[in-house]
Amino acid sequence: MNHNNPPTAKTLGEHRIIEIIQSHLSKMPRMPIPFGDDVSAVGLSEKQVAILKTDMLVGKTDVPRGMSLFQAARKAIVMNISDFASKGVKPTAALVALGLPTNFSKKDIEEIAEGLNSGAQEYNAYVIGGDTSEASDLIVSITLFGTAQKHSLMLRSGAKVGDILAVTGYFGKSSAGLRLLLDKVCSAEPILRKTLLESVFMPKAKLKEGLALSGSGKVSASIDSSDGLAWSLHELGRLSNVGFTIDIIPVSDEVKEFAKQNGFESSELALYGGEEYELVLTVNPDGWVDAVAAVEAVGGQLLPIGKATKGRKILLNVEGDKRAVEARGWEHFKSRV
Amino acid sequence: MNHNNPPTAKTLGEHRIIEIIQSHLSKMPRMPIPFGDDVSAVGLSEKQVAILKTDMLVGKTDVPRGMSLFQAARKAIVMNISDFASKGVKPTAALVALGLPTNFSKKDIEEIAEGLNSGAQEYNAYVIGGDTSEASDLIVSITLFGTAQKHSLMLRSGAKVGDILAVTGYFGKSSAGLRLLLDKVCSAEPILRKTLLESVFMPKAKLKEGLALSGSGKVSASIDSSDGLAWSLHELGRLSNVGFTIDIIPVSDEVKEFAKQNGFESSELALYGGEEYELVLTVNPDGWVDAVAAVEAVGGQLLPIGKATKGRKILLNVEGDKRAVEARGWEHFKSRV
Repeated sequence: MNHNNPPTAKTLGEHRIIEIIQSHLSKMPRMPIPFGDDVSAVGLSEKQVAILKTDMLVGKTDVPRGMSLFQAARKAIVMNISDFASKGVKPTAALVALGLPTNFSKKDIEEIAEGLNSGAQEYNAYVIGGDTSEASDLIVSITLFGTAQKHSLMLRSGAKVGDILAVTGYFGKSSAGLRLLLDKVCSAEPILRKTLLESVFMPKAKLKEGLALSGSGKVSASIDSSDGLAWSLHELGRLSNVGFTIDIIPVSDEVKEFAKQNGFESSELALYGGEEYELVLTVNPDGWVDAVAAVEAVGGQLLPIGKATKGRKILLNVEGDKRAVEARGWEHFKSRV
Repeated sequence: MNHNNPPTAKTLGEHRIIEIIQSHLSKMPRMPIPFGDDVSAVGLSEKQVAILKTDMLVGKTDVPRGMSLFQAARKAIVMNISDFASKGVKPTAALVALGLPTNFSKKDIEEIAEGLNSGAQEYNAYVIGGDTSEASDLIVSITLFGTAQKHSLMLRSGAKVGDILAVTGYFGKSSAGLRLLLDKVCSAEPILRKTLLESVFMPKAKLKEGLALSGSGKVSASIDSSDGLAWSLHELGRLSNVGFTIDIIPVSDEVKEFAKQNGFESSELALYGGEEYELVLTVNPDGWVDAVAAVEAVGGQLLPIGKATKGRKILLNVEGDKRAVEARGWEHFKSRV
């Protein structure tokens, strides 16, 4: 950052920009979910809330080379569904505001429409409306809507000291896949390459896991990992006012293989990636068996990786060696595919 | 259009693009409002619906020279509120997906935040969440949320032959203002200039009128005029399967003055403008007195301008001379500020 020049969007970064904007907004009275969680909410009745989420995909920064328009449009939906999954809310409907470069062909537009529809239908949601504008970049701005019982929401803020920290899958495939796409010296044999690129091009949201976990009533706090595992841990800690000790970094086997072959630290790929849509959550030890059973009943998995601790430190405790997990991950304006 | 080349977004235009996209979408069962109306809806109970609308403002095409970032952000909110107004629905909450060029300053971002907040607060709504991304253009993608009783919605599709056609104000100020901004040979003395530019820079949505009209229960069909009066009439006619005869073109006095001084046809400015946020609606003659009373009770006005007719023609009947109103107005990809 150049401290001699006034700050710009580029030097401020996404998180600071959001803080600046929030500080200028009048706050809705009785907001069921405060600013800074994965989704927003409006009260419908004493018990029921409307859940809303908007997130924008921009061609220039969010669509790596090799990703088709179908995949980009589908991903725009899936990344929003992941936020719903992390709160345990079923999305019902999606709205799409599209910005299209003027030279996009009819076929391009059809591919985008198919991707949007496919992303929504995979999770039993429907695209019910939208808007189209001319723009320099491809812009796919999605808003998701659903309803939920207020008491069943899994917020970022409920983790307690002693809770088990868990995730719904193994990490690092998307960051390995991105490196394969962007860094010409990286390589992988065909089957591994296919798996890693699939993670980038066709991400899946852990909706059935999120709904099962919410249904179990055993989750104290939850976030999705779209900005990376390390960043998610810091956010969960910050909003719950706890720290975490991580005993096992949940690195996927494919990532270990890729890391070995290409000279990366596999834990680095798993911790500081992003564009990966697992759930990161905490469960009181008393509820652990029920939470695992709920996730396994829908064909998912729940991996314990550590514990919530007093204080606000996020520490790796691997083979007795404690080191700090840094608060970095994917950030718009600063990161780039 | 060049028929030798495959169609692009530019040659297809906004309306055709939306048709293409819709044709690829799985349709939600029991959609309370069909595609093609001003807003979308999801059923909450037998009687209650959630109302959603998304519309995107793009710097390059929607923000004329001279408009501040505060005004642009505010307008992005107001143009969505106008769609809610046309259905008679109170907006509760807004979500904002922002695309920002990297060189935007902290002051630019603060101005945008203030504009968003101001637009929402003028109509007693709140910005409750959002997302920020890097983009080449300024992108302000707004989603509005509110709830309504299904029976009180004023759709585009209910006009009946014999209904009175009415509007909530006089037309043409925005198109005159845009010409002042974009066409160097146009001029207006200071007070007139100020009024016309105000209409472009600080548009108002007719929310209290829309809510009063919905409350009266006397409106058979309604649309907002954001794509121009002529276009709105064609849409209202198409979705209600009626035509209209227009006896009076509701041209504002300022537009008559501007037109005279600058060699324009004032009716042309009033009919084929856009970016103007009046309501265009139909009322059964039996309910006319009540509808007028409801609008006047909130300080608004309801101007009768014609009648719904059999067939699908939109005809001007001015001093006995009948001519067709063309189906043209503001269209993204084709029109430009």
